[in-house]
Amino acid sequence: MARNFKYHVYFRQYNDEILQKWKGRVKLCLLGIDLGGTTIKAGLVDLEGQLLVKAQVPTGAGDGAAAVLGRIGALTDELCRRLGITRKDLKGIGIGVPGSVEGEKGLVRLAPNLFWRDFPLGEELSARLGLPVAVDNDAHVAALGEMWRGAGRGLQSLLMITVGTGIGSALIINGYVWRGFFGYGAEMGHVKMLPDGPLCHCGGRGCLETLASATAMVRRFREYLAAGRISRLQDAPGLGAREILAAAAGGDELCLQVVDEAASFLGRALANAALIVGPEAVIIGGGPVQAGEVFLAPVRSYLTEALGAWQIRPLPVVAAGLRNDAGIIGAARLALQLT
Amino acid sequence: MARNFKYHVYFRQYNDEILQKWKGRVKLCLLGIDLGGTTIKAGLVDLEGQLLVKAQVPTGAGDGAAAVLGRIGALTDELCRRLGITRKDLKGIGIGVPGSVEGEKGLVRLAPNLFWRDFPLGEELSARLGLPVAVDNDAHVAALGEMWRGAGRGLQSLLMITVGTGIGSALIINGYVWRGFFGYGAEMGHVKMLPDGPLCHCGGRGCLETLASATAMVRRFREYLAAGRISRLQDAPGLGAREILAAAAGGDELCLQVVDEAASFLGRALANAALIVGPEAVIIGGGPVQAGEVFLAPVRSYLTEALGAWQIRPLPVVAAGLRNDAGIIGAARLALQLT
Repeated sequence: MARNFKYHVYFRQYNDEILQKWKGRVKLCLLGIDLGGTTIKAGLVDLEGQLLVKAQVPTGAGDGAAAVLGRIGALTDELCRRLGITRKDLKGIGIGVPGSVEGEKGLVRLAPNLFWRDFPLGEELSARLGLPVAVDNDAHVAALGEMWRGAGRGLQSLLMITVGTGIGSALIINGYVWRGFFGYGAEMGHVKMLPDGPLCHCGGRGCLETLASATAMVRRFREYLAAGRISRLQDAPGLGAREILAAAAGGDELCLQVVDEAASFLGRALANAALIVGPEAVIIGGGPVQAGEVFLAPVRSYLTEALGAWQIRPLPVVAAGLRNDAGIIGAARLALQLT
Repeated sequence: MARNFKYHVYFRQYNDEILQKWKGRVKLCLLGIDLGGTTIKAGLVDLEGQLLVKAQVPTGAGDGAAAVLGRIGALTDELCRRLGITRKDLKGIGIGVPGSVEGEKGLVRLAPNLFWRDFPLGEELSARLGLPVAVDNDAHVAALGEMWRGAGRGLQSLLMITVGTGIGSALIINGYVWRGFFGYGAEMGHVKMLPDGPLCHCGGRGCLETLASATAMVRRFREYLAAGRISRLQDAPGLGAREILAAAAGGDELCLQVVDEAASFLGRALANAALIVGPEAVIIGGGPVQAGEVFLAPVRSYLTEALGAWQIRPLPVVAAGLRNDAGIIGAARLALQLT
């Protein structure tokens, strides 16, 4: 296997100067790994959640699980070398995986993007690196990151929604990811918002993610164009929610309507969730949120309208703060929970 | 005030013989009070949740709060006398109230049936009886009772729904009532299930309780009759869900349809709740559930259908077990949480 490991090491908050300050002086830190279908991102994080150094490498999932674990091992050693520490200085490893995870067993039940089914990731990685390993779903891990160092800092209970190709969600209660009992955690992307709505890949109809995801916005925009509606935005093969949101922000009527429809479904779904579980805050991540208020403002508005008399104190709805680092920092937070 | 205090003392599990066995031998027990708009029910409960003796008296809320507190005091002394103990043998008092409660402060914010607003019930009752008092909403308290000694025995997390005039709900997580942060607790009766649905007294439209409560079943039945549909069941001024459920169980087509519609809204709302919070079990109380499977079976069926692929382990949906005693036993459980 001749894959070239180019470590894309970069620093967001901590430049070389700061790294030099820390190098060789860190007593104990955590390794956070954000294992994606395309990229493995990893970072060393101190016990207060500060990201000290990070790097990434292609996942190469097609090469098999052993190869992926090998890359994680190499990435770990590279990060340690850069910070001037050894594996023994690591308190533990946390890793977020895109799939269904039995966290307590460290078992990945199903991760289609990695071609894994019933893979004992925690056990295998722990044996390879000689360190305790905590495993969880990537949406759960990102929510932990936001709670620790992002938009949910200082909160004990939050609902995090990630709007992308689909809609992911995670519920944190009293500082821990709440999985519930019959599945693998919150699946708010699949609450049913429209009887006889669009068919979802899960087999259901009218799931939230068929109505409010980035994918849904593009589909709806194209449906309107096909029905003869006019927009300043031209359709194109690679058209994404980003362009629709930008056109909406620029006042394009059709795009505003598409965004408003998606926001209405998300806002009303959040109101229903709030009436059941009343989180301290809702954090929304993903592409559409980076477009800012053009999406968030109508979400808040529909949420407030649907909550009506039941909103005794305001329920904050805020944009995620950590963006691409949430997975690393959250995974480190997961490692901190290892006893 | 010449109201006659007739104590309707009766024993469900514990007859006179058992009471004689306990009388004078109980070292420590809890007083549970179910304060309703019409009746005050109270009972002495041992530390394992066994109801030892209970009694009830009309609330007489119109006489004012002081009179209600006086009746609670007299009821307390009467129960103690019957069990051969004194107030000093009581570890604490728990009380459930039909309204919005700030539990930690023992403050009743709003209880329309009692004509109370911002009434410091915990403080007042504690001063009067010389005992610690824990206060909570009656739906919360009933759920605690079901968890302790009823259908939720041994569970740590449950969602309890009470179907009656409205739809009440309570969420228990890790053994404690979970109130959330922006209101006074779970309000599943007000999740929105139908855009532009019936107007709810809360000001919202399409709230679950306008579609699946006992009241909703009666309203829907009458709407169908008015539209020319035929039923073996005759309309009458006092017609209730009980009669509709009985007729449905007997095969009446229109009543079956009415029950099925209510069950479909409840089942789908429960599926959405389950996708967010995944309780260990759902417990359903209230009149329609006492009719048995004619209501519960379609609720389960719609729930399972809506959960689809996401139900990895079965989510039990069971009828409440304690019926009228849930309020007393749950209030005693609340008292047990007093430190």
